Amino acid sequence: MKVVLDPVHGYIELDEIVQELLATPQIQRLRRIMQLGFSNLVYPGANHNRFEHSLGTMHLATMLMKNLDSIEEDKKMEIRAAALLHDVGHGPFSHVTENIIDKYTRRRHDDVRDIVRKGEIKEALKKHGISPGNLAKHIKGETSLGQILSSEIDVDRMDYLVRDSHYTGVAFGVVDYNRLINQMHFYEDRLVIDYGGLKAAESLLVSRFWMNTSVYYHHVTRISEAMCSRAVEYMVENGELDPKRLRQMDDIDLVAAMRNSSGHGGELSKRLDARKLYKRALYTGLGEAGKGVLKYRDKIERAEKEIAELAGVDQECVLVDIPKTPEMLEMKAMIKTDHKIIPLKEASHFVSILQEAHMDNWRMGAYSPKEHCEAVGKAAKEYFNIKKATKQFKLSDLEKI
Amino acid sequence: MKVVLDPVHGYIELDEIVQELLATPQIQRLRRIMQLGFSNLVYPGANHNRFEHSLGTMHLATMLMKNLDSIEEDKKMEIRAAALLHDVGHGPFSHVTENIIDKYTRRRHDDVRDIVRKGEIKEALKKHGISPGNLAKHIKGETSLGQILSSEIDVDRMDYLVRDSHYTGVAFGVVDYNRLINQMHFYEDRLVIDYGGLKAAESLLVSRFWMNTSVYYHHVTRISEAMCSRAVEYMVENGELDPKRLRQMDDIDLVAAMRNSSGHGGELSKRLDARKLYKRALYTGLGEAGKGVLKYRDKIERAEKEIAELAGVDQECVLVDIPKTPEMLEMKAMIKTDHKIIPLKEASHFVSILQEAHMDNWRMGAYSPKEHCEAVGKAAKEYFNIKKATKQFKLSDLEKI
Amino acid sequence: MKVVLDPVHGYIELDEIVQELLATPQIQRLRRIMQLGFSNLVYPGANHNRFEHSLGTMHLATMLMKNLDSIEEDKKMEIRAAALLHDVGHGPFSHVTENIIDKYTRRRHDDVRDIVRKGEIKEALKKHGISPGNLAKHIKGETSLGQILSSEIDVDRMDYLVRDSHYTGVAFGVVDYNRLINQMHFYEDRLVIDYGGLKAAESLLVSRFWMNTSVYYHHVTRISEAMCSRAVEYMVENGELDPKRLRQMDDIDLVAAMRNSSGHGGELSKRLDARKLYKRALYTGLGEAGKGVLKYRDKIERAEKEIAELAGVDQECVLVDIPKTPEMLEMKAMIKTDHKIIPLKEASHFVSILQEAHMDNWRMGAYSPKEHCEAVGKAAKEYFNIKKATKQFKLSDLEKI
Amino acid sequence: MKVVLDPVHGYIELDEIVQELLATPQIQRLRRIMQLGFSNLVYPGANHNRFEHSLGTMHLATMLMKNLDSIEEDKKMEIRAAALLHDVGHGPFSHVTENIIDKYTRRRHDDVRDIVRKGEIKEALKKHGISPGNLAKHIKGETSLGQILSSEIDVDRMDYLVRDSHYTGVAFGVVDYNRLINQMHFYEDRLVIDYGGLKAAESLLVSRFWMNTSVYYHHVTRISEAMCSRAVEYMVENGELDPKRLRQMDDIDLVAAMRNSSGHGGELSKRLDARKLYKRALYTGLGEAGKGVLKYRDKIERAEKEIAELAGVDQECVLVDIPKTPEMLEMKAMIKTDHKIIPLKEASHFVSILQEAHMDNWRMGAYSPKEHCEAVGKAAKEYFNIKKATKQFKLSDLEKI
Repeated sequence: MKVVLDPVHGYIELDEIVQELLATPQIQRLRRIMQLGFSNLVYPGANHNRFEHSLGTMHLATMLMKNLDSIEEDKKMEIRAAALLHDVGHGPFSHVTENIIDKYTRRRHDDVRDIVRKGEIKEALKKHGISPGNLAKHIKGETSLGQILSSEIDVDRMDYLVRDSHYTGVAFGVVDYNRLINQMHFYEDRLVIDYGGLKAAESLLVSRFWMNTSVYYHHVTRISEAMCSRAVEYMVENGELDPKRLRQMDDIDLVAAMRNSSGHGGELSKRLDARKLYKRALYTGLGEAGKGVLKYRDKIERAEKEIAELAGVDQECVLVDIPKTPEMLEMKAMIKTDHKIIPLKEASHFVSILQEAHMDNWRMGAYSPKEHCEAVGKAAKEYFNIKKATKQFKLSDLEKI
Repeated sequence: MKVVLDPVHGYIELDEIVQELLATPQIQRLRRIMQLGFSNLVYPGANHNRFEHSLGTMHLATMLMKNLDSIEEDKKMEIRAAALLHDVGHGPFSHVTENIIDKYTRRRHDDVRDIVRKGEIKEALKKHGISPGNLAKHIKGETSLGQILSSEIDVDRMDYLVRDSHYTGVAFGVVDYNRLINQMHFYEDRLVIDYGGLKAAESLLVSRFWMNTSVYYHHVTRISEAMCSRAVEYMVENGELDPKRLRQMDDIDLVAAMRNSSGHGGELSKRLDARKLYKRALYTGLGEAGKGVLKYRDKIERAEKEIAELAGVDQECVLVDIPKTPEMLEMKAMIKTDHKIIPLKEASHFVSILQEAHMDNWRMGAYSPKEHCEAVGKAAKEYFNIKKATKQFKLSDLEKI
Repeated sequence: MKVVLDPVHGYIELDEIVQELLATPQIQRLRRIMQLGFSNLVYPGANHNRFEHSLGTMHLATMLMKNLDSIEEDKKMEIRAAALLHDVGHGPFSHVTENIIDKYTRRRHDDVRDIVRKGEIKEALKKHGISPGNLAKHIKGETSLGQILSSEIDVDRMDYLVRDSHYTGVAFGVVDYNRLINQMHFYEDRLVIDYGGLKAAESLLVSRFWMNTSVYYHHVTRISEAMCSRAVEYMVENGELDPKRLRQMDDIDLVAAMRNSSGHGGELSKRLDARKLYKRALYTGLGEAGKGVLKYRDKIERAEKEIAELAGVDQECVLVDIPKTPEMLEMKAMIKTDHKIIPLKEASHFVSILQEAHMDNWRMGAYSPKEHCEAVGKAAKEYFNIKKATKQFKLSDLEKI
Repeated sequence: MKVVLDPVHGYIELDEIVQELLATPQIQRLRRIMQLGFSNLVYPGANHNRFEHSLGTMHLATMLMKNLDSIEEDKKMEIRAAALLHDVGHGPFSHVTENIIDKYTRRRHDDVRDIVRKGEIKEALKKHGISPGNLAKHIKGETSLGQILSSEIDVDRMDYLVRDSHYTGVAFGVVDYNRLINQMHFYEDRLVIDYGGLKAAESLLVSRFWMNTSVYYHHVTRISEAMCSRAVEYMVENGELDPKRLRQMDDIDLVAAMRNSSGHGGELSKRLDARKLYKRALYTGLGEAGKGVLKYRDKIERAEKEIAELAGVDQECVLVDIPKTPEMLEMKAMIKTDHKIIPLKEASHFVSILQEAHMDNWRMGAYSPKEHCEAVGKAAKEYFNIKKATKQFKLSDLEKI
């Protein structure tokens, strides 16, 4: 059997269907989709991509299925294929372009259904008798076995947590995934974790907690992604980019297009290339901003416009960023004890309190070029009716490079 | 400069005073004091000793002092010597014999004051103009610089957490000690952590949490230590062992003495050698036992006697273990923000909730030979007036070997 | 002091000059130059870039200088700046475009002299009183201190060996660089390794040996680089690319240009994107090919043309690859014993034999689309007058993905 | 299935037979036999024991057997049991007491045949229908399957190389054992390595090379072992120790006995405890000593006596150490290429030269208390007729602690 060497999991075995899928241009494209978008502007080692993550996810799915009784070989093959394909629908820089694709093409994001029904992937699946429809269901977690790939604690998040930790160097984000996988079983059609895997499940939650605060929600990541997203929108609005093409593009296509963009798109592109980023004009937590601020999530554009007016600057100089409040789906994973099945949140006091900690670390921001920060910050405070703080402690000072 | 290779920290440099102290029999004895007592009965790799831990502590103290401004070279040397000597007063199997030494010799445990005033250590210190009195104060954290070695977040616990993690293989117990050390400073005579070190401090607390539940309070560790402790008491009571000699003995001396002991001491020794351990007759948390149970901590012997009577077994067949409730001193470490100094517990919501999680994991136990477990369990429940649970979920199943 | 987290070395400190250089677009461009060109087609994790390597090199230079006595602070700053800038002259995909830049622009490759004399870098250097001329000399190893960056065993190769090992996952390529750095000193104006560092130096040589055979000379790497190189030449020859622009381009610019290229350039680009690579028509060692084959290194184009004719295929279907024979400069590093300075090769029998082992692993190849492999292989054997073998054992089977 | 956590391999699964064997006192005794004897006097972390090594060997055997086709479950169980028991015949400090047991009991060392035929082990084997005779044959590599445990490249040495590397911290001694195991197969009743495993096999040989020079033949290890061995002989000769008991003793028994020994045995014991070791009076390689010196290997005692006389010191002050020349059995491992089976030595130029490098590092020594070193060194040179060198470069300076 062919193998490939992965710095995270070591040797990964590739069976026939996997080799054939790997040979398709659709999977090869994932080599050029960064896993963490612009997080390499904070963590210079974070240059890994969706291709290796897909391989790792497939590997973990295989490991997990070895422990699960009585799955037929055919079904295992299906899940392996689904694992490898689960991100094939991502656009450039993954999450950065998702919203834009949704907004302008009115398609559910990550929609792989169409992709696996066409071209080389369709052929490879057909040869092995795999139905593209079933495959898409697995990927979306709509089948029983699909829980392996998409549920509260799935191999997708196991791989990305441990992989992101390896490449960023954020050492304390370690998941004991071997243990976790050893302790997972189907119980009445539900993928559950045995009590012996409780601590390993906790380790995943803690890892997620730290990766959120150190990496995924690092303000430099947020700012760069907001800038890129704005540039893409500008290009779409000005007819420089066809949004329907986005899902076929890779990071190189997008950056090349941004560099060619006239006006604001090109300016933002130049800024991103040179790491001349916008700065935090306002940066604050739920305590100061109040929960009411969340209602602005639907009206970001208007907020930016009005803040810009208040501040007396161009609208292009204001980026407002109000993330969703953290969900922590993992807390709903089911733990199996001797007598019963209970949610992870109830089985572990430790886990139950993590959600509060997440909420604590939530931040909203208004970003602008350095020279307008003072004006924009003042205007944003006024607009959102924030009394006290403007800028809270930064959560990390790893932000220079 | 001489160096030595440590699997945890890499190359450790040894200056003159360190080399001379290392050449004393008192320090060499630490090679034969296990760091984790009987935890290797659960984690077979946990065979490290106080000697390497002392070297590691000295190394971290040196690293920390490099970051602290304006400490005189002489003072640095003192602290390095103190770091190396901080455990020189430990008896065999460290914590296992501490209580016995205290009980029978009426000396404060860990009392290094006498040891550094005598023999080869005194000579080495004298040669470098170090006062044994000052040294002992540093070790006890009674001086300003002594906080490096003994305070809420000190290099002693940094080393043992990361070292215990390395040798047990408990991977998620990782402390980002490089970061932590880089962020520590003296502020108004107090060793504080800069805000940039908050996440690293959290990582230490989480590491402590996991090491407590997985290792330090693992029931197999508790049972073996209770058995050893009982054997030693038996020997002292029966004139087979002079308690005043204990602090000079090493693990080999103690095990050899136990093997030579007649009666119950020898039997327990045989059991420990063959890993025929007592089992949990009762094992329960504070929720079931009620806080009142803590008052029995002073009357363990009497409890054992009365439970044995109730159960109709020899008193030797009952071991009662009621640990202190967890203290988490680290929560009181001070964090320095721009404006003020606040306790870690206040700076981090995450930390504040860890104490509850610790309390959740607290367990008391009654242990006995397997054949008496049922009777002893029933009697213990009656004695401590515990209504509901007898044996709770085990926290780990790593207990076979 | 600002720090940045590197997955290889941990926290890296950034002083003022370093922060200022990092803020220039010229250094930021290095983020988009892959360190290992197309090796990620074999090792999917090898997506690191020249930016992080430059940071790592600067870090190791700083570590080394801490151990060297009496270097003035100013000089240290110069070397740190030089370390950070040492690769700033690289074109897209580093080595892939080097030859083309040399050929078409008649400039010495890697010529940084011009780059540091202009724009933002010049300003940053000027502010700190660093002469661009001196800096360039350091980078080229023409000064005494420059040996730190460029000599037989320098921090540049320490960083890339350990970094490439980390990202490829090729675990046995580990250099004990901490030890090595601790054992290096200036002796009569020459940077030498103390005898205590001999084993660490051996470890570097062995690491180099393995990285050469597993990574740098892996046939998939060679083939892809030959394909890319050919595409670029095609574009230059057909006026689609101005060779003078190459040194300012990054990988994204080059790939975007290739995708836009008509004819053969675009075809090769499509093949590289989809990993539809040429295959080995001929692949053989010096034993079979004879040393005479090396004289063809200057006439590759002609060889390709004539082989294509012999095989009856288009010239575009033949790529000939005759690498230089391995040099192993490291063997000339000087080791200091009690009495004298001798070359590493003489101090270590082990090292002396490594060169032969390298020679053993040397391979030349002729590559072509799969369907022409037989014809091209036969023609190439005839052209190079190779009697026996055609294709030798592959050195690795990690080639599927 | 029960699992145990090993810091080297992670979770190790324990099936029924393994659990039962682990519960025997004979296997539990291995917890108290140090894997590396006195090497912890050089590498303070090297405190691991035969118990964890036996677990690791069993784990690797299981991994390897998963890749080998068509081994019956019963046979697999036998090999797992054999792996776990392969070191059960070791005496205290393993190699240190081997020669003495051989000399005074006239039994082949490591003779496990008797041990597995008795007591708890016999019972456990019987329950599962395993013949003790077959088991002993497997352990000695006298069966086809036994090659897994005992042959040129077996799981025993894979485990100890990687384990010794982990605990000493000698990082460059890394074996790519996952790869190696994946590439091993039976071919015509011989366990061979596929060509794809060549580099992994080379990594094992290099690891062995470095562990030999850095650890196994480090002079401090050699000196301490010679001292211990001498003390035991003294005790046997003086009736203080029954040599027949040795194989049942553990390290604690032996050290306790040494501490109780009167005269020279007790003195050496005190020296070992306090690390007041003999020093090198003579230390030289084959180049200087000439191959003729090897003939003294049978007459060490006489050599010591005569050197002592020449030097005018007590015989007890002279220890002569002439190791066997290195064998490197691994070079004879068979590599399977497309056409044939060839020895590793022929398949890899690199390996073929390693033997010479080993020979280069071979050292003989004469050791004595520091104060007699000069006299003893002179006498030893005269006795062995060594002209030139007395003491060569030390191979390591990690010798202080």
